[in-house]
Amino acid sequence: MKALHWDGTTLKLNQTLPTPKSTGEMAVVRVRLAGICATDLQILRGYMKFRGVLGHEFVGTVSEGPAELLEKRVVGEINFGCGQCEFCSQGLSRHCPGRRVMGILGADGSFADYLAVPVKNLHRVPEEIADEEAVFTEPLAAAFEILEQVTLSPTDEIVVFGDGKLGLLCAQALHLTGARVTVVGKHEKKLGLLKGLGMDTILLSEWKPRQADVVVEATGSASALKVALDAVRPRGTLVLKSTLAGEHTLSFAPLVIHEITVVGSRCGLFAPALQALAQKKVTVTPLVEKVYPLEEGIQAVRHAARPGALKVLLKV
Amino acid sequence: MKALHWDGTTLKLNQTLPTPKSTGEMAVVRVRLAGICATDLQILRGYMKFRGVLGHEFVGTVSEGPAELLEKRVVGEINFGCGQCEFCSQGLSRHCPGRRVMGILGADGSFADYLAVPVKNLHRVPEEIADEEAVFTEPLAAAFEILEQVTLSPTDEIVVFGDGKLGLLCAQALHLTGARVTVVGKHEKKLGLLKGLGMDTILLSEWKPRQADVVVEATGSASALKVALDAVRPRGTLVLKSTLAGEHTLSFAPLVIHEITVVGSRCGLFAPALQALAQKKVTVTPLVEKVYPLEEGIQAVRHAARPGALKVLLKV
Repeated sequence: MKALHWDGTTLKLNQTLPTPKSTGEMAVVRVRLAGICATDLQILRGYMKFRGVLGHEFVGTVSEGPAELLEKRVVGEINFGCGQCEFCSQGLSRHCPGRRVMGILGADGSFADYLAVPVKNLHRVPEEIADEEAVFTEPLAAAFEILEQVTLSPTDEIVVFGDGKLGLLCAQALHLTGARVTVVGKHEKKLGLLKGLGMDTILLSEWKPRQADVVVEATGSASALKVALDAVRPRGTLVLKSTLAGEHTLSFAPLVIHEITVVGSRCGLFAPALQALAQKKVTVTPLVEKVYPLEEGIQAVRHAARPGALKVLLKV
Repeated sequence: MKALHWDGTTLKLNQTLPTPKSTGEMAVVRVRLAGICATDLQILRGYMKFRGVLGHEFVGTVSEGPAELLEKRVVGEINFGCGQCEFCSQGLSRHCPGRRVMGILGADGSFADYLAVPVKNLHRVPEEIADEEAVFTEPLAAAFEILEQVTLSPTDEIVVFGDGKLGLLCAQALHLTGARVTVVGKHEKKLGLLKGLGMDTILLSEWKPRQADVVVEATGSASALKVALDAVRPRGTLVLKSTLAGEHTLSFAPLVIHEITVVGSRCGLFAPALQALAQKKVTVTPLVEKVYPLEEGIQAVRHAARPGALKVLLKV
């Protein structure tokens, strides 16, 4: 089969990789559409020391697996937990210490014709959801993860820093709570994608520091950390959505003095994301910047790495 | 009156300061016993740019104020809120943006014969509580603050880093929840004070990294921050109790990857602390290292600044 393979030095379109086979636990999915994520780009810079087929966002059709799933459209949770440990038994396989992670840790990913996924990780995609929407399930689930971790009230004021893919998805998920959401970004065009959705948007250059109940840091930039922390009211909450590589310097005293809560937030459950997509409660297709065929995957990855690029998809 | 006064350069025993007068809102308290806190020592290094009479831990007798409090033993909450704002109206005057703070911000403190305190901040001290116990109400309230902020379960495993005054008080407050508490410290003698209270203690040099549900950082040392963060299990909570001055460098990625919650925690309400003292649920007097008369206050502060010193008190 064809796949975009990373050997630690070079990203190559390999045309002769063996197609995965189904086992009892693993189904094989024929990929239809895959999304390139900032994490993929970080892997190419050494993150997680991953080697293998890249990619963890996809929608596809089951080609081998249980009869009830055969030929059905599916998406799949990316953390492959052991199923036995304390975390797995609480529905937190995304924190299983022995987990493999699709395209990130010990498991081949979705930038390929075919992909092996544990049957228990698959979710059928309702008919109302187009492929171009379903491929956003994984990042949208990460946005909904905030709602699993932080108790929000409709009277809360929320500020999201970042108008990239993650920021725009987080803002939409948070806005479903009825809270007032303001998105602070650097790109008028991207902020414009939220127009008509009932959120406030403001350019970072025009941001007048004020304080909110909940602040979400989704810029991926370390320099935003201090601005975001300053925007949290006493006893408020700062949600960190970006995985910032490396070490960063911060004054911790304000955190204690103002009794601020900082919540690290990563992957989420697929069910709420699929439900929001099926019920058209979120708008994701305007986030698609370009679709490339898998054969032009190298070019697609290069495009996704452009500063300010929105979602680049691979059609398989 | 006599008081230990800090002018930004020198700490002096001033014998001729005017005695505060009672107004409608403010009572005057004759101080009986005052405690020296790490924050006082930080103020002498420039923290908060405070000028005035130091001190915020005390027990005293009301000498001027409402009839029902006259000649009664009292302790007093240290944050003097405006009483009007959003925070004050939620019982969070300790976060009032216009607050003065006893001996820390815009209000004279307790290292003095007499002290002015808002009547609404005063709490009568039950008879069962000795002066040497009551003087711990403020730091003990700060320890109980963790229970106001973090929902703990008796099945939780808690690790407290720090065997100083704050660590030993936090450990005792947390242990009341029924959770298993381990205290990690550098001083065998101080850890020994917890003997017989049902907690585990371990020297930092013998600490074998493992992970707990809740970790409390109460060392006051920036280097402990990483050790403490590493000891938090995925989805667990790190409570920051020490106000670390200056900037510190930390890798934030583990916080996001393991979805850790960091909770800044400062002052607490006096009621639960007084109740625990009255019911003898906590043991504080073994933390007293030495009692000096106010006249020897300079010497007392010097003693309190010795590395590893426990509580130094001033008898007025």
